[in-house]
Amino acid sequence: MAIVLAGHQYGKAENRVVRFQRDTPRHEIVDLNVTSTLRGDFADAYLTGDQTKVLPTDTQKNVIYAFAKEKGITSVERYALDLARHFVDRTGPVTAARIDVDVYPWTRARVAGEEHDHTWTRSGSEVRTVAVTVSGKRGAQEAHVVAGLKEFTVLKSTGSSFRDFLVDEYTTLTPTDDRVMATSLVASWRYDPAVIDAGDFGAGFDPDAAYEAVKGAFVTQFATLPSLALQQTLWHMGRAAIETVPEVAEVRLAAPNKHHFLYDLQRFGTENAGEVFHADDRPYGLIQAVVARDDVPPAPAAWER
Amino acid sequence: MAIVLAGHQYGKAENRVVRFQRDTPRHEIVDLNVTSTLRGDFADAYLTGDQTKVLPTDTQKNVIYAFAKEKGITSVERYALDLARHFVDRTGPVTAARIDVDVYPWTRARVAGEEHDHTWTRSGSEVRTVAVTVSGKRGAQEAHVVAGLKEFTVLKSTGSSFRDFLVDEYTTLTPTDDRVMATSLVASWRYDPAVIDAGDFGAGFDPDAAYEAVKGAFVTQFATLPSLALQQTLWHMGRAAIETVPEVAEVRLAAPNKHHFLYDLQRFGTENAGEVFHADDRPYGLIQAVVARDDVPPAPAAWER
Amino acid sequence: MAIVLAGHQYGKAENRVVRFQRDTPRHEIVDLNVTSTLRGDFADAYLTGDQTKVLPTDTQKNVIYAFAKEKGITSVERYALDLARHFVDRTGPVTAARIDVDVYPWTRARVAGEEHDHTWTRSGSEVRTVAVTVSGKRGAQEAHVVAGLKEFTVLKSTGSSFRDFLVDEYTTLTPTDDRVMATSLVASWRYDPAVIDAGDFGAGFDPDAAYEAVKGAFVTQFATLPSLALQQTLWHMGRAAIETVPEVAEVRLAAPNKHHFLYDLQRFGTENAGEVFHADDRPYGLIQAVVARDDVPPAPAAWER
Amino acid sequence: MAIVLAGHQYGKAENRVVRFQRDTPRHEIVDLNVTSTLRGDFADAYLTGDQTKVLPTDTQKNVIYAFAKEKGITSVERYALDLARHFVDRTGPVTAARIDVDVYPWTRARVAGEEHDHTWTRSGSEVRTVAVTVSGKRGAQEAHVVAGLKEFTVLKSTGSSFRDFLVDEYTTLTPTDDRVMATSLVASWRYDPAVIDAGDFGAGFDPDAAYEAVKGAFVTQFATLPSLALQQTLWHMGRAAIETVPEVAEVRLAAPNKHHFLYDLQRFGTENAGEVFHADDRPYGLIQAVVARDDVPPAPAAWER
Repeated sequence: MAIVLAGHQYGKAENRVVRFQRDTPRHEIVDLNVTSTLRGDFADAYLTGDQTKVLPTDTQKNVIYAFAKEKGITSVERYALDLARHFVDRTGPVTAARIDVDVYPWTRARVAGEEHDHTWTRSGSEVRTVAVTVSGKRGAQEAHVVAGLKEFTVLKSTGSSFRDFLVDEYTTLTPTDDRVMATSLVASWRYDPAVIDAGDFGAGFDPDAAYEAVKGAFVTQFATLPSLALQQTLWHMGRAAIETVPEVAEVRLAAPNKHHFLYDLQRFGTENAGEVFHADDRPYGLIQAVVARDDVPPAPAAWER
Repeated sequence: MAIVLAGHQYGKAENRVVRFQRDTPRHEIVDLNVTSTLRGDFADAYLTGDQTKVLPTDTQKNVIYAFAKEKGITSVERYALDLARHFVDRTGPVTAARIDVDVYPWTRARVAGEEHDHTWTRSGSEVRTVAVTVSGKRGAQEAHVVAGLKEFTVLKSTGSSFRDFLVDEYTTLTPTDDRVMATSLVASWRYDPAVIDAGDFGAGFDPDAAYEAVKGAFVTQFATLPSLALQQTLWHMGRAAIETVPEVAEVRLAAPNKHHFLYDLQRFGTENAGEVFHADDRPYGLIQAVVARDDVPPAPAAWER
Repeated sequence: MAIVLAGHQYGKAENRVVRFQRDTPRHEIVDLNVTSTLRGDFADAYLTGDQTKVLPTDTQKNVIYAFAKEKGITSVERYALDLARHFVDRTGPVTAARIDVDVYPWTRARVAGEEHDHTWTRSGSEVRTVAVTVSGKRGAQEAHVVAGLKEFTVLKSTGSSFRDFLVDEYTTLTPTDDRVMATSLVASWRYDPAVIDAGDFGAGFDPDAAYEAVKGAFVTQFATLPSLALQQTLWHMGRAAIETVPEVAEVRLAAPNKHHFLYDLQRFGTENAGEVFHADDRPYGLIQAVVARDDVPPAPAAWER
Repeated sequence: MAIVLAGHQYGKAENRVVRFQRDTPRHEIVDLNVTSTLRGDFADAYLTGDQTKVLPTDTQKNVIYAFAKEKGITSVERYALDLARHFVDRTGPVTAARIDVDVYPWTRARVAGEEHDHTWTRSGSEVRTVAVTVSGKRGAQEAHVVAGLKEFTVLKSTGSSFRDFLVDEYTTLTPTDDRVMATSLVASWRYDPAVIDAGDFGAGFDPDAAYEAVKGAFVTQFATLPSLALQQTLWHMGRAAIETVPEVAEVRLAAPNKHHFLYDLQRFGTENAGEVFHADDRPYGLIQAVVARDDVPPAPAAWER
């Protein structure tokens, strides 16, 4: 029996890059949290402490900040692709690179009814995410782009039931025809590799518009589907995302069922017809689904953290 | 020498009340985190363990949820006043009650361009706050209402300088004529007791509109004042709040200076003219100010947590 | 009516200072989070943007790190006093300075049963706190030292009841003779100014030993008092702290009642005699007390944040 | 092209179970955060909203609390195995179950030098973890047990260098022969399926002792290895874990490099020979390794969340 190094990777996590476009008086802001992960021929650093092939995480940080200016950020997806390809193409021992980005949304401040040129407030509670993986050196390169969102909290006050479920000796839940349904959605969707041309998106594709379209499809399904379970709602959200943005090959959804318990007011002689709830913290249901087109091959490499 | 009980209070913290208005197909949502604090004649509970005068915190919770239906929530300020007066007026040993509320904002979901009747998404990062203190029994009652916001993050990419400061042997800071200014504002404003008629707001006053007006005044000053320091910006924000909503007697502001450091790209031959920053976590400057009208007496009781 | 600047202060928050003593092969570690707050003649910075009297928060940071070496940290209380006196004595416009410190505990790692010379693991969940306030220039100076702890979580599985409380129409709580009592204690205690000689502790006083003695008194009371309410327990904890360390003039305690609800297993034919509980998050009772010696005058300035 | 449900699972997350053993005056405490995840034939719940095969997450919660009493918790690993097997064996549509547990450590309080019978304080900052996966019905069952820890913070003040690394045009890091090395370790180790007899540990194996032995091996390597990089330290930690507990088949380690930057005091004429550091928050290096015995087949199912 031998003990072996069966896997390894390393990188610089949570680089808080803020990039302004100041070419005109009307500035633009991009606010990011960027993590790099490099894979490759680094076993010596572990086994013998030989760092000859190790690009310092400090250097990765420098590239992450420098590219925000040198390459620019026309879209976060392209910026992440630029970073990943840089590490794979320019650093010999690197065989694959993954770039994870959290994007924090800002809204232009309004002053006297007008949008302000250089002031913003943080908007929404959701965080947009991008995960790019590039493997193989230039010429034989495979690239994956996964977009997503998290901390996207959505709630409906009616139009949700849960009944006719499996009952065993530990089941005490009462079926309901009308409940509050709320979740803080985590969703990721992988783009069809066919739309990523030579490691970049093709000319006709706008990842920002795709993001808004997918988010809109999620909201529409959540709001309008008379829900028999959060499971069913997730399936319809995933399906609608693919139908709305055909470049989406696969959607992964994880949704905590943020329970709202009707508060018992009858003890005080007061009727509570779905009006007053306690929003509970823990435990919570956690429902997950993967929805995919059957004509695009799976890509485990796109999802490997 | 004797050891004495020099102060005491107790209550139920963080009741997560969600209240829907369902009278018409177009529902309304109010999402709150409510904390009650009772003051009064509870020394025996501490000194001898005698609970005869102690209204359980569990009962306070029941009242907090029940009043969301029984009294309704025409405004969070009025709901908090109702709660505070209830504890003071109906529970013998209670001489004063404080109700703290965090209000989480939701935005109506849009489906096919239309606002949805019963679905919302969590909006904004800011939390609206209300703190009501009622002391004295009915007939000789004093009431204070403090409104506010927190986690209100605002940033400007230019229009801020910091120079000509005091220099000593430990000073290494370089003056700057153009920097990023960002903060996560915590602000509270006390309403003139004259507008609180018999423990309630007078007919002409709309606390929701006042909240929006104060927030708008904060944003306008932050955006438009060419800032010589965050101190100066805070003063103008506080002054503008009072000028915009005359019922405001006093404003308290606490603003972390969320430092954005220009990333040194010259080492890589790249110019960085205020475009790429590192958003740092800690340490941070913390600037505070109290701005007040000089014709309204101070009210320490309004601020005592 | 005029609008006035009614109060102001500023400083540098959360300086993460780690100090090693490396004079011998057996190193020592002190791990701190230090916040400075300066009060004084800074109105011009707010009213006109004139920074002439403003010592930058960046300079305060430099002093905080430099003093960790220049003055050393014989005790955190003395280090904080050194910092506060420095700002008051050396910076003209400063009339008072407050230094808040969180102290993170580390335990020496054990290797082959022996304590290691230069490796530690983070120990305990509690954070020790120090808050020092110095006002007035040298010669007419007043100093206050408040020590404390927070996130100190303690639990007892029996020896706690709650009954014979006030009952009204909203009361549904069942009295109990045996419950779990748990809290995450926040406590602060002010030392008698008489033990702070010329702004420093006298020769005979060891603040580290006092901290351990107070913590021990808290634990002993929590564990051994048959509790009729968390209120009663707090009173005895505060009283014991003063009795154990006579230099303590006043103790402030805030204790969330971390509710543990007995899980109803009878539905499954299983008895649950105080064995299986759900540890709930929110809401929670919050009980507060101030316990003081009656022969030391109150000192609001010691507590002003 | 069709859109398909390509994966799904669901469960109840973060059940906060606290279990006391009260058979003798000396009570015992086990404090857990338990998450169940069920896999199986649940597609109808997604595709058509048919819940016939869905065991409610509320029922899973009931089982989690009930088993804490009915089966007891002789070890957390066995309790998790009991839960997983219950869901697989007793619920028809379930083909696999995963149970994740966080274990919060408590230390018996000391009163007058003696351990107290029924009072504890929360100890350490680390959380022990257990993840059990059982797939296949009774008779053809595969079980995996992964133990671990997280938030285990360890620091050494010397004995760590980083030099002779790869240098490119973005590299500005200075090599160092003596630095602070600190991490908040996340580690998981999979036990050889051969030690899990019929879904349970064999008679001779004590998972609590194994946990302490692995933790001790980690600390010893971290402390004593003159480190050329965090990579090298992780390799030795993983190897030592397997050497110390032969039942360990595979170790996965993720270690943030919590950077401590030497504070520049020379600007103030003060030497800083590795004594005063700023503990930085973000970004941080993130180093990962998998160390395994080559005679035990890999088990991806053990790691699938």
